[in-house]
Amino acid sequence: MTTNPSPISDPTSAEMHWSRWGDPAHAGPLAESAFALVDTFIGTTETPAVDSAEVRLTDPLDAALVSELAGIVGDDNVLTDHETRLHRTRGKSTPDLLKLRAGDGSDSPDAVVRPGTHGEVVAIIEWAVEKHVAVVPFGGGTSVVGGLAARRDGYAGVISLDLVRFDKLVEVDRDSMTVVLEPGLRGPQAEKLLAAEGLTLGHFPQSFQYASIGGFAVTRSSGQSSAGYGRFDSLVVGLTVATPQGTLELGNSPANAAGPDLRELVMGSEGAFGVVTAVRLRVRPLPEVRTYEAWRWGSFAEGSAAMRILAQAGMLPTVLRLSDENETAINLAKPTEVGGESSGGCLMITGYEGTPEAVEAKRAAVTAILAGLGGENQGPDSGQSWADGRFHGPYLRDSLLDVGVLVETLETVTFWSNLENVYTKVKDALVSALGESTLVLCHISHVYETGASLYFTVATKAQADPLPQWREAKSAATAAMVHNGASVTHHHAVGQDHKPWYAEEIGPVGVRILRAVKAELDPTGVLNPGVLIP
Amino acid sequence: MTTNPSPISDPTSAEMHWSRWGDPAHAGPLAESAFALVDTFIGTTETPAVDSAEVRLTDPLDAALVSELAGIVGDDNVLTDHETRLHRTRGKSTPDLLKLRAGDGSDSPDAVVRPGTHGEVVAIIEWAVEKHVAVVPFGGGTSVVGGLAARRDGYAGVISLDLVRFDKLVEVDRDSMTVVLEPGLRGPQAEKLLAAEGLTLGHFPQSFQYASIGGFAVTRSSGQSSAGYGRFDSLVVGLTVATPQGTLELGNSPANAAGPDLRELVMGSEGAFGVVTAVRLRVRPLPEVRTYEAWRWGSFAEGSAAMRILAQAGMLPTVLRLSDENETAINLAKPTEVGGESSGGCLMITGYEGTPEAVEAKRAAVTAILAGLGGENQGPDSGQSWADGRFHGPYLRDSLLDVGVLVETLETVTFWSNLENVYTKVKDALVSALGESTLVLCHISHVYETGASLYFTVATKAQADPLPQWREAKSAATAAMVHNGASVTHHHAVGQDHKPWYAEEIGPVGVRILRAVKAELDPTGVLNPGVLIP
Repeated sequence: MTTNPSPISDPTSAEMHWSRWGDPAHAGPLAESAFALVDTFIGTTETPAVDSAEVRLTDPLDAALVSELAGIVGDDNVLTDHETRLHRTRGKSTPDLLKLRAGDGSDSPDAVVRPGTHGEVVAIIEWAVEKHVAVVPFGGGTSVVGGLAARRDGYAGVISLDLVRFDKLVEVDRDSMTVVLEPGLRGPQAEKLLAAEGLTLGHFPQSFQYASIGGFAVTRSSGQSSAGYGRFDSLVVGLTVATPQGTLELGNSPANAAGPDLRELVMGSEGAFGVVTAVRLRVRPLPEVRTYEAWRWGSFAEGSAAMRILAQAGMLPTVLRLSDENETAINLAKPTEVGGESSGGCLMITGYEGTPEAVEAKRAAVTAILAGLGGENQGPDSGQSWADGRFHGPYLRDSLLDVGVLVETLETVTFWSNLENVYTKVKDALVSALGESTLVLCHISHVYETGASLYFTVATKAQADPLPQWREAKSAATAAMVHNGASVTHHHAVGQDHKPWYAEEIGPVGVRILRAVKAELDPTGVLNPGVLIP
Repeated sequence: MTTNPSPISDPTSAEMHWSRWGDPAHAGPLAESAFALVDTFIGTTETPAVDSAEVRLTDPLDAALVSELAGIVGDDNVLTDHETRLHRTRGKSTPDLLKLRAGDGSDSPDAVVRPGTHGEVVAIIEWAVEKHVAVVPFGGGTSVVGGLAARRDGYAGVISLDLVRFDKLVEVDRDSMTVVLEPGLRGPQAEKLLAAEGLTLGHFPQSFQYASIGGFAVTRSSGQSSAGYGRFDSLVVGLTVATPQGTLELGNSPANAAGPDLRELVMGSEGAFGVVTAVRLRVRPLPEVRTYEAWRWGSFAEGSAAMRILAQAGMLPTVLRLSDENETAINLAKPTEVGGESSGGCLMITGYEGTPEAVEAKRAAVTAILAGLGGENQGPDSGQSWADGRFHGPYLRDSLLDVGVLVETLETVTFWSNLENVYTKVKDALVSALGESTLVLCHISHVYETGASLYFTVATKAQADPLPQWREAKSAATAAMVHNGASVTHHHAVGQDHKPWYAEEIGPVGVRILRAVKAELDPTGVLNPGVLIP
């Protein structure tokens, strides 16, 4: 049994590069095998980004307004310089990066404001309502759905409400196994504070190194260990939310029958209803052991049937993922080996975390089921290779954008009986929109008793203007999801990008409910305008 | 290992007695030991109910309106006779029964309407909006929180929308392990239909024999097997809801990140936002084995600590309950043995359901933990005795009301670190309000990683007018819950009775959200007026 180091030991810079994922020094060059694969199949063209100084941002916020904000948070916490605003311009979707790489910073905030207390957040919201300034809550800046690109028209300005100073572990309740965390804590910061207490959230999405606790909550994030620790929304037991109408304190118990669960209205609200200033979360003991293994399946259908059987038997490992034939063939699950030799078939990763006894018991039970279903156990090496590269995937995209290859991901979720249908329809829609020389890869990374997610990675030759090229492909793929009964998103949220299909997904009565809540809590519409609400 | 018959084999009449729980023929007389206990401790006085014909109901609905309704659902499905209306008057709380026993039927519906299709429900709602008639959705009539006592003033009448004809299993999706059930199915009806498919919901609240699928959903019911099968809200994956603004179709996937989870707004809405006409539910295989055991603990604190350890170890049996010292002393967990000899200490019931292998594995693991913590395994006899009497508890209340003893239950939920505090404060509030000769019994029947429920049973000598007597005690107990950070209800819902404290629980911003959704979906307020919304 392998005991590998905690994922939080990975060193990263605190702030991401303005037009690339994470810390480029951490990325390493594109593997030769990956470059060769892409060059042969898609073709490459050097496509450098502009210099950061050349990006055209909006005008900084009016000096009188800046001065008023400084009166609330202090001079040091209102910033209007180019670099600070550039780093809070949009999120990290491929269209976001393409725009910045081309010098388009038109969605920049006019100022970045850094409150330190709930009271300061309340005061900023009151001020924003009075001055009709749009407020974009900022956690990690990892949105890939346009969640940070608020509508500007009609507003006196747009400010980024950076929650970076909300970085404390406020409370530990060991009996109840809950903690209160502030929303600006990034994944590694939160896990370090919890590790010192012998605790973990167990929430490790691919964005873990930069995304924030508040962001996880308001976007219904789901991590790579969701099979064992649960989706982030299942970890949230309480929320403090500053709204223009006052503060909402939710979550006095694990669950109750006291009316609608209003926590579930705040989760997924993407800053449109209020700003989360504290989150009470269920925690687990820090695992003594973490071990990962690989399995090989003859086909995606066989592998996914095995996942369904595990989920419905209540016998899930902590991590459970399955790459389809294409993703397995190019080794996407092992970012440093992309394009290298593959074992073929479909690669499954199983991971186990906990006490040595619990890990061994679960591993034995899962192994018996998978072996009985025809899976070939390939041992811990490939599993460890996946674990080592688990946060590396997004760096590949930057290397490919540099050589004129358009890369993006999209994801959905549906019931098991509809999974193969949605898988086929989305793939067909992407290839049909982007042409034959397009790589479409897929994996299942989140499973439930009743269904599973599908996560697609797409690579194709970028056209001269790749934005409309991708827009068309994204439209076709998302329409294929919704028209086939799947959701527009399993864990990326709605933002600006999914809104048209989201309205179709929840229907006209659902849209009326959201609009009514928005109108009640934020009648002047200053909170993240244009995001979520159709 | 004992394999006992399915709980659905219990014969019951389809409709409950008008002023008593269930089918009185099924109740049997009060055990002599129970009568002796109550007579000694509290004192008894014969207190018979009036005859059903003497109950004063409201006037039947205006004939012209009846005729319009008949145009929608047919003559046979609009009923205004005394018996039919009497049987849909209020729910089954002790105040509900006391009023009826005294001849007060002032909350009766003016007509009972029985639609058979979603379209008929939509048409009835449209008609009700037009005529300004209040609509009270009726499933099993088991509410204990005033959920069926709509406000009358200002309305042209009040109709009971009886969903009894919504009694079909609409769809079985074996791959996804989901089914679609109609809302009027009572517990046993639903389980019989599912058993024929080899499936079960595993949802067995004490109201199981009469309560309905729709009622379970809109009140966030929780059953005696919640540790194994989950709360009812965790079983719901989809809902069809008829509202005055159109139909809401929710739930295209197990979970997603597509905005707020609107299913969680309908669950707990108690008919105030719309009428549920179909529910998609997660199901499990029908268990091959059901086995129950008893454990004895030295104190409530020791037993509840053991429950917490099981929950936080992810090692929960299917059923897990713990009676406090008082409840154990009078044998309340075994309704036919109340007042008989008790083993003392605190009685815990553990139940296991599933395949023989899964049951044996879980039982071995749980047994090792409980024995290690100092629990004394008392074997299957007491466990089976609990299982045999599991739906019998409510009948005891009727026998006691007959002899002038006021009996009622109330329940709450909080985090583990607050459990003992809330337990003590609620007991003190009840004894302080009702006097020393009051029995207060308690059990924990629903546990989570982060907390647990507390379910209190109270018995005291009824005063000449027991309604204000109980109102005062209920107020004191509920205030003790809310002021000590617990919820007004774990699984009984809000109704009319919990509204004042519920407003305090969700705070002014929470109240504004509910009112905004209500105003949007039901602007003229015809749906269950007076219920839920503060």
